[in-house]
Amino acid sequence: MTDYTQILLEKDGPIATITLNRPEKMNAYTRHMMAEMIDAFDDTDADDDIRAVIVTGAGDRAFCAGADLTPDDGSKPFSSQTEVTDLSDEVVRDGGGRLTLRMFQSTKPLISACNGVAVGVGATMQLPMDIRLASDNARFGFVFARRGIVPEACSSWFLPRLVGQQQALEWCMTGRIFGAEEALNGGLIRSVHPQAELMDAARELANEIAENTSAVSVAMTRAMLWRLPVENHPMMAHRIDSRSIYTLSRGKDATEGVQSFLEKRPPSYPGKVSEDMPDFYPWWNEPEYK
Amino acid sequence: MTDYTQILLEKDGPIATITLNRPEKMNAYTRHMMAEMIDAFDDTDADDDIRAVIVTGAGDRAFCAGADLTPDDGSKPFSSQTEVTDLSDEVVRDGGGRLTLRMFQSTKPLISACNGVAVGVGATMQLPMDIRLASDNARFGFVFARRGIVPEACSSWFLPRLVGQQQALEWCMTGRIFGAEEALNGGLIRSVHPQAELMDAARELANEIAENTSAVSVAMTRAMLWRLPVENHPMMAHRIDSRSIYTLSRGKDATEGVQSFLEKRPPSYPGKVSEDMPDFYPWWNEPEYK
Amino acid sequence: MTDYTQILLEKDGPIATITLNRPEKMNAYTRHMMAEMIDAFDDTDADDDIRAVIVTGAGDRAFCAGADLTPDDGSKPFSSQTEVTDLSDEVVRDGGGRLTLRMFQSTKPLISACNGVAVGVGATMQLPMDIRLASDNARFGFVFARRGIVPEACSSWFLPRLVGQQQALEWCMTGRIFGAEEALNGGLIRSVHPQAELMDAARELANEIAENTSAVSVAMTRAMLWRLPVENHPMMAHRIDSRSIYTLSRGKDATEGVQSFLEKRPPSYPGKVSEDMPDFYPWWNEPEYK
Repeated sequence: MTDYTQILLEKDGPIATITLNRPEKMNAYTRHMMAEMIDAFDDTDADDDIRAVIVTGAGDRAFCAGADLTPDDGSKPFSSQTEVTDLSDEVVRDGGGRLTLRMFQSTKPLISACNGVAVGVGATMQLPMDIRLASDNARFGFVFARRGIVPEACSSWFLPRLVGQQQALEWCMTGRIFGAEEALNGGLIRSVHPQAELMDAARELANEIAENTSAVSVAMTRAMLWRLPVENHPMMAHRIDSRSIYTLSRGKDATEGVQSFLEKRPPSYPGKVSEDMPDFYPWWNEPEYK
Repeated sequence: MTDYTQILLEKDGPIATITLNRPEKMNAYTRHMMAEMIDAFDDTDADDDIRAVIVTGAGDRAFCAGADLTPDDGSKPFSSQTEVTDLSDEVVRDGGGRLTLRMFQSTKPLISACNGVAVGVGATMQLPMDIRLASDNARFGFVFARRGIVPEACSSWFLPRLVGQQQALEWCMTGRIFGAEEALNGGLIRSVHPQAELMDAARELANEIAENTSAVSVAMTRAMLWRLPVENHPMMAHRIDSRSIYTLSRGKDATEGVQSFLEKRPPSYPGKVSEDMPDFYPWWNEPEYK
Repeated sequence: MTDYTQILLEKDGPIATITLNRPEKMNAYTRHMMAEMIDAFDDTDADDDIRAVIVTGAGDRAFCAGADLTPDDGSKPFSSQTEVTDLSDEVVRDGGGRLTLRMFQSTKPLISACNGVAVGVGATMQLPMDIRLASDNARFGFVFARRGIVPEACSSWFLPRLVGQQQALEWCMTGRIFGAEEALNGGLIRSVHPQAELMDAARELANEIAENTSAVSVAMTRAMLWRLPVENHPMMAHRIDSRSIYTLSRGKDATEGVQSFLEKRPPSYPGKVSEDMPDFYPWWNEPEYK
């Protein structure tokens, strides 16, 4: 829809699909792709018609084979940044983390449709998504310790929350490549599908959200479920959910929610994320890199 | 035992059972029921003979069908509170959270026997319980996004801790109603039972605690396991468990514990929660709503 | 290798094995054993040739039957410390926690090979290990509430992170003894093995780490995955992983990692934990007991 060169952004009704689109390079990640993906999430957040975002890879081999060490698109590889001595300098910032922190802030649900190989940043960029589906030929690898580096893209924060401490440690300390079955048993993905059915399954889930829920409710719910469990007492959740229930229960989506329920018809929520979030949202300040 | 009108509180030896008792309304939640439940937990905490509390619903259809939007008991529905502009006003406080925060503070183990439909606050009030059992006809729903509101009762804090980030997000962002099997696979409940056997299974578990353990130990253990994992270093746990072991190992329950073990007889712990908690308990200050 | 009397420390290539060695006492834990184990972890951390540490028990009956209440080695039992009134006194410190806090700081991966009974501190000392394997005759018990005390060794911090809130509460509030199958289903251990094959399975896993990964990467990964998930925002992980990727991607292990990958040969990483950790490591201050 925009003139992206390394991704596609397609919209079909309430569902946007972002496709990593360098199939000849197994959709390897570049600075340029990072910038395009961040731009695409800005787009899907700003577009009130979009209710859910699916992320997948072009072709049937790879979701994303990791960082491109030899990009041929004119951009520098990630490791050849300007040299600095101050590690709090912006240039030091990991390119995977810039993306995952943007995804963390998304107001729309993010669904990963992992259609093949996903190693390195190809695996870690899936962690801040809300729900992960994979094809039966998917293969994952948190391979950093096999390359002399460490898990990036904030994955040390995300992965143990998703799969528990023991599984996260085993995958990251061995750097093993593993298949869809191990990913499912370990809790990384929520379901496995034949590749030909993967996108339909992802769309079905996206539609379940789009057809039944309030956009404002889902944006609030996403922020609450990612941000409040790290607080050291449930009172913090009580403060936010009390304010939310009080405010939203007086709003137009709650009226429509109850009305459509009583009338046994599909809901049509008028609320927009761009205009109707409660005044106290966001209730946090995003920390800066330093 | 007290003159409750919307719940029952029954005591049988060391086990108390609280029954949400509006079967004609599918045990829907009201302000009045909230007040009675909080009163009942005050009672079970104060009664040293009670070693575990089971919470269930009257009838064979519902545990609790959520907040009663049209209470006929003279109380106001939750949404018709006095209007205020200051969201830190007490009147804004969510009625589900008032209950779950009280349950969070319980010194007695809480066991949910979910005997049917549990949606909205009927689902979220089960989260601060320690262990959840369900009948095979149970159905759960974190339906808030389908009503234009958000997960309440501090469930954004509790649910990801119980079932992980991915499952919590899927249930809350779709608002889907799901059955006992999905609840079991997702980690929400620990076992499923034919409805006729549900209460027996709950009582068996409650008796396993009552017959074998020290009441003071269990009250301490409950507080430690809910409160210490959120600390940012295991040293905080070391501070509390060192003080506890030092103090309690010199106490009467530890003497009886070792003695009964060596004599291969059932223990009879003399310690009382009302009198024998260590001096440093509670080691925290409860935060206030603001 | 050293003149330990209650444990064995054996080294075979890159793998060290620590064996709790009081089989006639079911490897029960004493102050002396604690001191020897801490000394052994100092040894394995300082020895750059050691890439992983397996911990097991001597004999085929027990991993460790808990604290020895009647040690015959001249050391005092844990409960007969000097009496103090100030609970922040060092003498109050729990002997299990002294060990688990040392294990928490290990720069080498720790693998538990639980070869039999593991109750009390025999169970809790396994929690700060990274991965737990067990023989099919293993039996676990967080039995503290059955002895009038509480879960120690920082287990209230570790256990819910490993197995979730509901499972941790059930095991600790009942104090039940349970077998390898329940431990596996509950997520405490990652696999069950016939006893004759347990050590081989543990060594295979240790070798998977040793043969494929950089020691510096694994030491960093271990610290990141245990310490960063408790931070209240992924930005903290972004700060640390950005610095790490920037620094390590310019280092000798990253060069060897890429080189061996491109040459399709096994890697031979030159980096040493004793010399080559990034300057900003450790990025935290260990809190003190107080």
